[in-house]
Amino acid sequence: MENKEKTTIVLFSGELDKAIAAFIIANGAAAYDHEVTIFFTFWGLNTLRRNERISVKKGWLEQMFAKMMPRGADKLGLSKMNFGGMGPKMIKHVLKKHNAMSLPQLIELAQEQGVKLIACTMTMDLLGLQEEELFDGIEYAGVAAYLGDAADANVNLFI
Amino acid sequence: MENKEKTTIVLFSGELDKAIAAFIIANGAAAYDHEVTIFFTFWGLNTLRRNERISVKKGWLEQMFAKMMPRGADKLGLSKMNFGGMGPKMIKHVLKKHNAMSLPQLIELAQEQGVKLIACTMTMDLLGLQEEELFDGIEYAGVAAYLGDAADANVNLFI
Amino acid sequence: MENKEKTTIVLFSGELDKAIAAFIIANGAAAYDHEVTIFFTFWGLNTLRRNERISVKKGWLEQMFAKMMPRGADKLGLSKMNFGGMGPKMIKHVLKKHNAMSLPQLIELAQEQGVKLIACTMTMDLLGLQEEELFDGIEYAGVAAYLGDAADANVNLFI
Repeated sequence: MENKEKTTIVLFSGELDKAIAAFIIANGAAAYDHEVTIFFTFWGLNTLRRNERISVKKGWLEQMFAKMMPRGADKLGLSKMNFGGMGPKMIKHVLKKHNAMSLPQLIELAQEQGVKLIACTMTMDLLGLQEEELFDGIEYAGVAAYLGDAADANVNLFI
Repeated sequence: MENKEKTTIVLFSGELDKAIAAFIIANGAAAYDHEVTIFFTFWGLNTLRRNERISVKKGWLEQMFAKMMPRGADKLGLSKMNFGGMGPKMIKHVLKKHNAMSLPQLIELAQEQGVKLIACTMTMDLLGLQEEELFDGIEYAGVAAYLGDAADANVNLFI
Repeated sequence: MENKEKTTIVLFSGELDKAIAAFIIANGAAAYDHEVTIFFTFWGLNTLRRNERISVKKGWLEQMFAKMMPRGADKLGLSKMNFGGMGPKMIKHVLKKHNAMSLPQLIELAQEQGVKLIACTMTMDLLGLQEEELFDGIEYAGVAAYLGDAADANVNLFI
């Protein structure tokens, strides 16, 4: 066992504000030299979807999920005050105005800092998401991988 | 103090998807031989309600809560894409299709694996829920019991 | 490093029920002599707003946020069964009936017990909240301060 502090986050939620909070904490911890894992499950997986439409073979239920769920970090709604998309626009505007990083930039920074991004394979199966639909540099694993990291970590959050 | 790893989950939310996530993590941790506690509070308590109507004496406010809140694991809605009950049906269909466990099966497995299920007595008081309304094999305690377990645990999540 | 147990809570959510849960856990931990930090970020910051209207200079976007967001612990809605404000009234009624503490009383107790309340300065910047708008006895810091406390703590929750 190493001496490095470890931090894990389960990102279950698929909302812009929660994803931003998750990545700010993850990037902060990485900057303090923690080993950081984010485990994307359920709606959180949508954060990792590519923006463009990927053509993969799917059953009708999987197609429905794919259509109803937001395609990528730039399409997420807010957990509060969404107002049919107005809320996310306001937040993005406010981030830009304060020279704060957007969610896609926060994700990029996390990857540069070596934050481990794990997509939950069980959820991918259930929702019919395929690896081609998510962006590069992601690991694929189940809850056992998450628990292995979490058991060694001091800060474990469910967002 | 023992050497066994410990994991605790506060299940505050009363939604099907979050309850499934909580029990998947709890069962995973129990399979890795962690001592696992789930502390059910606020809306999370609805996960433990019996399916059938139990006749107990209640004031009108407690009756209203009892009526408005979902009766058991099989009646919970989704945190996203609920669509008036369509969403939960889709999720249940998808779980079945992939031979994944339903929430009632996950709860049963948790009990078989010795996961400690604690119902928050303060919330029960507030919402007027009585022990007869919850299923068997549950412990009843307050936040102090949760904190005792959490202070010894490495993985502590609030869901 | 001291021997005192440490507990941290990120309060991200701006709902009455989640804020009550956060403060009950925080007060419980403080009663067990833990060092407790609550880090208020995003919508959670609204818990700390003064009830009365404070006149401070703001741009129009900041004014809009200030108007749309609830002003203080007494104005928060519920995460479930809000029913246009009926839900919070029911919860407050029920707390009173059982001689349980209201959220403002829970906050007061937390301050008396020395729970550290930190307002996230980044969110304050983004939403245009100013120190005059929050009540007294609060510390102001960024995610680094939270991570410093969390790395030493055993119980770390995101609510």
